[in-house]
Amino acid sequence: MRLYDYHESGNAYKVRLLLSQLQRPYERVEMDILAGETRTPEFLALNPNGRIPLLTLDDGTQLAESNAILFYLAEGTRFLPDDRLGRARVLQWMFFEQYSHEPYIAVLRFWAFAGLLEANASSIPEKRERGEAALAVMDRHLGQREFFVDDRYTIADIALFAYTHVAEAGGFDLSRYPRVTSWLARVQRQPRYIAITQLE
Amino acid sequence: MRLYDYHESGNAYKVRLLLSQLQRPYERVEMDILAGETRTPEFLALNPNGRIPLLTLDDGTQLAESNAILFYLAEGTRFLPDDRLGRARVLQWMFFEQYSHEPYIAVLRFWAFAGLLEANASSIPEKRERGEAALAVMDRHLGQREFFVDDRYTIADIALFAYTHVAEAGGFDLSRYPRVTSWLARVQRQPRYIAITQLE
Repeated sequence: MRLYDYHESGNAYKVRLLLSQLQRPYERVEMDILAGETRTPEFLALNPNGRIPLLTLDDGTQLAESNAILFYLAEGTRFLPDDRLGRARVLQWMFFEQYSHEPYIAVLRFWAFAGLLEANASSIPEKRERGEAALAVMDRHLGQREFFVDDRYTIADIALFAYTHVAEAGGFDLSRYPRVTSWLARVQRQPRYIAITQLE
Repeated sequence: MRLYDYHESGNAYKVRLLLSQLQRPYERVEMDILAGETRTPEFLALNPNGRIPLLTLDDGTQLAESNAILFYLAEGTRFLPDDRLGRARVLQWMFFEQYSHEPYIAVLRFWAFAGLLEANASSIPEKRERGEAALAVMDRHLGQREFFVDDRYTIADIALFAYTHVAEAGGFDLSRYPRVTSWLARVQRQPRYIAITQLE
């Protein structure tokens, strides 16, 4: 398999982390998204939506969208429940991540490292407020739970971990969410965990 | 089953449409999102993220996120492929819908009917541009295809149809996307299709 990646991308890191934990070998292709490498005609022929991560399967099939890739790789493994309701709950948290979490928490981090905070100053308060709301929903859900679904580590945790554990780079204070910080530590203790900076 | 619904919501309509096509009976509970009915303590106890649609299963389980609900209801039916790659492709388009489509196409429609266009005037150009980009990706993918995945009608089509077919309410000109408009007509010809305004 080939993973089109970007080293700072939490969405791509989700796939790298699961591939490490599944012990699946793959070829990594770094795409400089800041230089427009995902918007060239060549890359748009692979993914018309012009985004990484993109996974090329051994038969040449292209699969896009980080959480769809996670679901594909996790089916039949311990990282995805084998009952219908468990799978639906995992998907519920993965859709929460892409709709109510990533557009705020990941985007503020991206603006910070890409030097775009000033250009987007008027949008920051709303991004901040919605990101805090997402962290509060997570903290409330975790309660006495160890993980997001069925009290075991699944791809729902991987999807939510990716941008939550680096949220402070976007100005969020995670110490306000003690159950989230405990859960982050539990994820980091999983076998074959790799850091976001660990590329292969 | 009980569906917490809002009559103008495309996300809730996805679930109503699939339930109609599955011929599954359910109780509909209208929630006035403009009056804050999804942000009351009572509703937040059901869905801490404060959003509809929310589906209560017969055993009392709550399931949130429209596309996770679709996946749950469609498993084992003709609306979801029974092979792993087919399921992943359906999920790819459903994540595309929630990340690259709904935040632009649905939000402009919502602002129009809720009288919020003026208050959000500075955000409109970016919403418009990204919504057009999503429609262009759909038009390109459809090409000679009849439907989004495996050339048959699945929940990927339901998810994308919900806000696309009413995109003109948000100012989008669908005649610019002829393959999208042909596909919309194919969805509307499916057995037990219901309109977004048809509540039960």
